[in-house]
Amino acid sequence: MLTSRLRSPQTSRLTVLALLAGTLATASGAAAQEFQDLKKPATPLVLQSQGSFTVGGDIVFSDALGTGGSGHIAVNQMYVQYKVPPSSRVPVVMVHGADLSGKSYETTPDGRMGWEEYFVRKGHAVYLPDQVSRARSRFDPTVFNRVHSGAALPGAQPLISRFSNEEAWTVFRFGPTFGTPYPDEQFPVEAMDSFAKQMVPDLNAMLHAPNPTHKALSDLALSLKGAVLMGHSESGRAPLEAALIDASGIRGMIVIEPPGGCGMKYTDQQIATLARLPILIVFGDHLSSAPRDWLGAFENCKDFIARVNAAKGDAKMLYPPELGIHGNSHMIMQDKNNLEIADLILDWIDRNVGTKVTSF
Amino acid sequence: MLTSRLRSPQTSRLTVLALLAGTLATASGAAAQEFQDLKKPATPLVLQSQGSFTVGGDIVFSDALGTGGSGHIAVNQMYVQYKVPPSSRVPVVMVHGADLSGKSYETTPDGRMGWEEYFVRKGHAVYLPDQVSRARSRFDPTVFNRVHSGAALPGAQPLISRFSNEEAWTVFRFGPTFGTPYPDEQFPVEAMDSFAKQMVPDLNAMLHAPNPTHKALSDLALSLKGAVLMGHSESGRAPLEAALIDASGIRGMIVIEPPGGCGMKYTDQQIATLARLPILIVFGDHLSSAPRDWLGAFENCKDFIARVNAAKGDAKMLYPPELGIHGNSHMIMQDKNNLEIADLILDWIDRNVGTKVTSF
Repeated sequence: MLTSRLRSPQTSRLTVLALLAGTLATASGAAAQEFQDLKKPATPLVLQSQGSFTVGGDIVFSDALGTGGSGHIAVNQMYVQYKVPPSSRVPVVMVHGADLSGKSYETTPDGRMGWEEYFVRKGHAVYLPDQVSRARSRFDPTVFNRVHSGAALPGAQPLISRFSNEEAWTVFRFGPTFGTPYPDEQFPVEAMDSFAKQMVPDLNAMLHAPNPTHKALSDLALSLKGAVLMGHSESGRAPLEAALIDASGIRGMIVIEPPGGCGMKYTDQQIATLARLPILIVFGDHLSSAPRDWLGAFENCKDFIARVNAAKGDAKMLYPPELGIHGNSHMIMQDKNNLEIADLILDWIDRNVGTKVTSF
Repeated sequence: MLTSRLRSPQTSRLTVLALLAGTLATASGAAAQEFQDLKKPATPLVLQSQGSFTVGGDIVFSDALGTGGSGHIAVNQMYVQYKVPPSSRVPVVMVHGADLSGKSYETTPDGRMGWEEYFVRKGHAVYLPDQVSRARSRFDPTVFNRVHSGAALPGAQPLISRFSNEEAWTVFRFGPTFGTPYPDEQFPVEAMDSFAKQMVPDLNAMLHAPNPTHKALSDLALSLKGAVLMGHSESGRAPLEAALIDASGIRGMIVIEPPGGCGMKYTDQQIATLARLPILIVFGDHLSSAPRDWLGAFENCKDFIARVNAAKGDAKMLYPPELGIHGNSHMIMQDKNNLEIADLILDWIDRNVGTKVTSF
């Protein structure tokens, strides 16, 4: 109902903002709504195995733990939840973007099936990490506690990144200004409050280069004896970076909307490494309308594709508007047509990585 | 192999520490081991539905967001992942303890099935939250960024709690001193490095009372139209606190090792409310051996049980040593006999909450 009102051309921006404010203000009401919004699938989901584990990590000494004073703690590990169907095509590792967690690929903000479950239902084991230092992968609290106690200066602790709802709306291309969606917008903007509740403080600024997530992804692919790596936004280039560490476990790379583009600074030798694997780049719609230079990133990735293919690689662009599919946002895995987009990606995997099915 | 060496009486403490240090130091090796440790179940897991959503939450204005400057963000929401079997007994909500996340109930540190999957296989829908301000439920970064920029004094930001490995070993009763397990220890101490990697910075100190997790649990039980709430350690009393907000969705309460006890400060009126619902208190072994006063907490809970039952309630203690089951740690849901303990709890649910099965 809110959707249709949001989409009605008669609805003024102020009305939409008032509606959103109303939705956002009723906290427990919204909570109940979120639960009630959950869609039940028509058929059961059958899993051979599921659970979680961590990859990588270092044991370091901390002199500033809140309760325990000092001692050793684990840092830099990557939490991964996994779901394996009874017979499995190539595993897919789905990595989330800035200020987000693995939740990006679970149930959508308006209660529909996410890519995690959909890919599993299509026969792929899915591995869903939280980036190192984020959410269940956790960050090192030491510097914050040292600042609290005066043992370090305030500037020693990093700025913690988190998008405001207003910024997410335009940067993620839900619409031209906060509260106003694009006429053909595919993101479920009526669930903006629910999406806001997925936002996680982003502590990547405190990670030392190289980002430990990249090594963890490369190690995970090796453990899986072959996996497709998918990265989104902040982690968009993570599959490429993982392959440059060790490509031997990686069977394909899916790069979704990396800010700044696909990385034209790679050396010819690095491009030669990347050219050994199939690569799919994905961008949504309205690229020239947002405050961030998504069009520049898109053009940069087209140049990257040309460079990889000139090195006898196999890189392709999935740009839905070219297929007559319009209105996709930066959160393409949560858009209303998310399963239609997923089918295009699954088809690319079948054609470029393989259709081999392994029975366990 | 490490287990048997750890358990050998000939092994000196120094040897054990050297072994642990060796395990902990080989970061990527340990990671590969964690993946290889995963046990595959004998039969598939069938789910009618699964996914995640959030409960509660407030939209607030922040003037110190890392990238976005200022704007509105969501705080106080509780992330919940869920798994519903095709036919379902009463749903169970499992809440984790301090410095931990919902991961506590997933795969154990040594790769065995956790309580989440086991309860689902026994016909219960399981809801697995991250406490408000933790992990995927996320915290408000505003005060930290204000301190960074000088807009607030360092003391304005809370101390962030995180157990060191050394402290966790004794407080969680893996053994009397770090590196030495109790002779009959049930916790898989050879996977201490993996357990350390589950530890999440704990920001509960920045939550305003009452803890929003309690209201979120009460709301979740209402949405489910009946649920058993289970709390562990820091959240041990959370089921009781949720019932005191609104008990109408709650059908039973399981309280595992609350530090300080079960809360003897409750008024007679509050006890009368709690006495309307079946209550199970759970404590492990070695209560008098740890640096924390677990024995005091245990005795306090026995007094609480007497008080509830004097008010015509139905409260019981599950204390495995009385049943001849020895060596359970504070992380009883991850102990080697975790499914044996689970069976005792499932039996209590059947006898005290009901065996009704709902087909979806």
